[in-house]
Amino acid sequence: MRIDIISVLPELVEPFMQESIVGRAQRRGLAEIHIHNLRDWSVRRDRRVDDYPYGGSAGMVLQCEPIDRCITELQGQRHYDEVIFTTPDGEQFSQPMANELSLKENIIILCGHYKGIDHRLREHLITREVSIGDYVLTGGELAAAVMADAIVRVIPGAIGDEQSALSDSFQDNLLAPPVYTRPADYRGWRVPDILLSGHEANIRQWELQQSMERTARLRPDLLKQ
Amino acid sequence: MRIDIISVLPELVEPFMQESIVGRAQRRGLAEIHIHNLRDWSVRRDRRVDDYPYGGSAGMVLQCEPIDRCITELQGQRHYDEVIFTTPDGEQFSQPMANELSLKENIIILCGHYKGIDHRLREHLITREVSIGDYVLTGGELAAAVMADAIVRVIPGAIGDEQSALSDSFQDNLLAPPVYTRPADYRGWRVPDILLSGHEANIRQWELQQSMERTARLRPDLLKQ
Repeated sequence: MRIDIISVLPELVEPFMQESIVGRAQRRGLAEIHIHNLRDWSVRRDRRVDDYPYGGSAGMVLQCEPIDRCITELQGQRHYDEVIFTTPDGEQFSQPMANELSLKENIIILCGHYKGIDHRLREHLITREVSIGDYVLTGGELAAAVMADAIVRVIPGAIGDEQSALSDSFQDNLLAPPVYTRPADYRGWRVPDILLSGHEANIRQWELQQSMERTARLRPDLLKQ
Repeated sequence: MRIDIISVLPELVEPFMQESIVGRAQRRGLAEIHIHNLRDWSVRRDRRVDDYPYGGSAGMVLQCEPIDRCITELQGQRHYDEVIFTTPDGEQFSQPMANELSLKENIIILCGHYKGIDHRLREHLITREVSIGDYVLTGGELAAAVMADAIVRVIPGAIGDEQSALSDSFQDNLLAPPVYTRPADYRGWRVPDILLSGHEANIRQWELQQSMERTARLRPDLLKQ
């Protein structure tokens, strides 16, 4: 799949796309991430893309024209399944949404910045507004990086060990069970005996019990879905 | 305030801490972010800090000793208000939590990676487990960057315009009103007349109405809090 990210601070997003799972998926040809500097579509000599909001509120607003020109140019080159805008008042990003988006061919993620984008773009050009959580960030760059990471890592082959992604939290509406590694005794803190027993069936049963108990205690809402 | 971030991939987090609001807040002396490479506390010649999980599950687990040594060394230098672990099954990060954490003096954020950290660390060393949302990321680095950004930007003086942060979504349990900037007519898409009226009191009232209408329609849960 291909993800185009549009941002006024592309240098914030680029390192993530070269490193870690996203970088590896790109080198394996499983995903292509293209990062665009919105200022390249500015129509002003100073390359600015923002202006004061109408009505006298505080903060700056990203203008219609550069964003419209950038998205229109990309859409002239290929079909995009979604034009996503990252904003705290969007639909909540979730594991099911990451799974769903990983099946798309091409998506655009437009990063909000400053006070936001001109609302007319949201009415006319954006197909989906997504929030990564109920908090405000300086810009949508981190939100775009979060989305790209969560989406790309569920593409088959992106992470080394398929089983590992399938047993992650949320994939079956259960939190993951606790994990332990060597040494079995660290400063008197001991690994549960069952994990040292070598009895595979009992271990799987214990892990499932732990998952269910942790989910019921920490996130009972997940069990109702 | 001071934030210490512990990670196996510090190069993923560093760019964010130099740029944008977090970088500016550091240069103004409002915040100090220190990023530590967990491998520096490895006790193995190959600097590895992970090992296979007990019980035969897939994935790798971060070991007790390097994390314990790193946190203990930091705690020997100063008092930390919180030792936070980023994990998808933690307490949901939110704007009120960002506001609260911005008042702390020193916090540690330990980034999970691979399948997670040895559970004994969560029982004995971690004081707070935080999730930025219901999705799984390759590592906690993006979660730590998200938290640092949301926390630092509410420190007074961190963003240029105080009013701008106070009128953000969530600060008053309302979504922000739509924003518009020049031109007033773009490709036939027009800015609402009220914003061009110059009548300050009517504009503020319209913005509040819009905020309430958007919140009731998109996020009715916020109005019940």
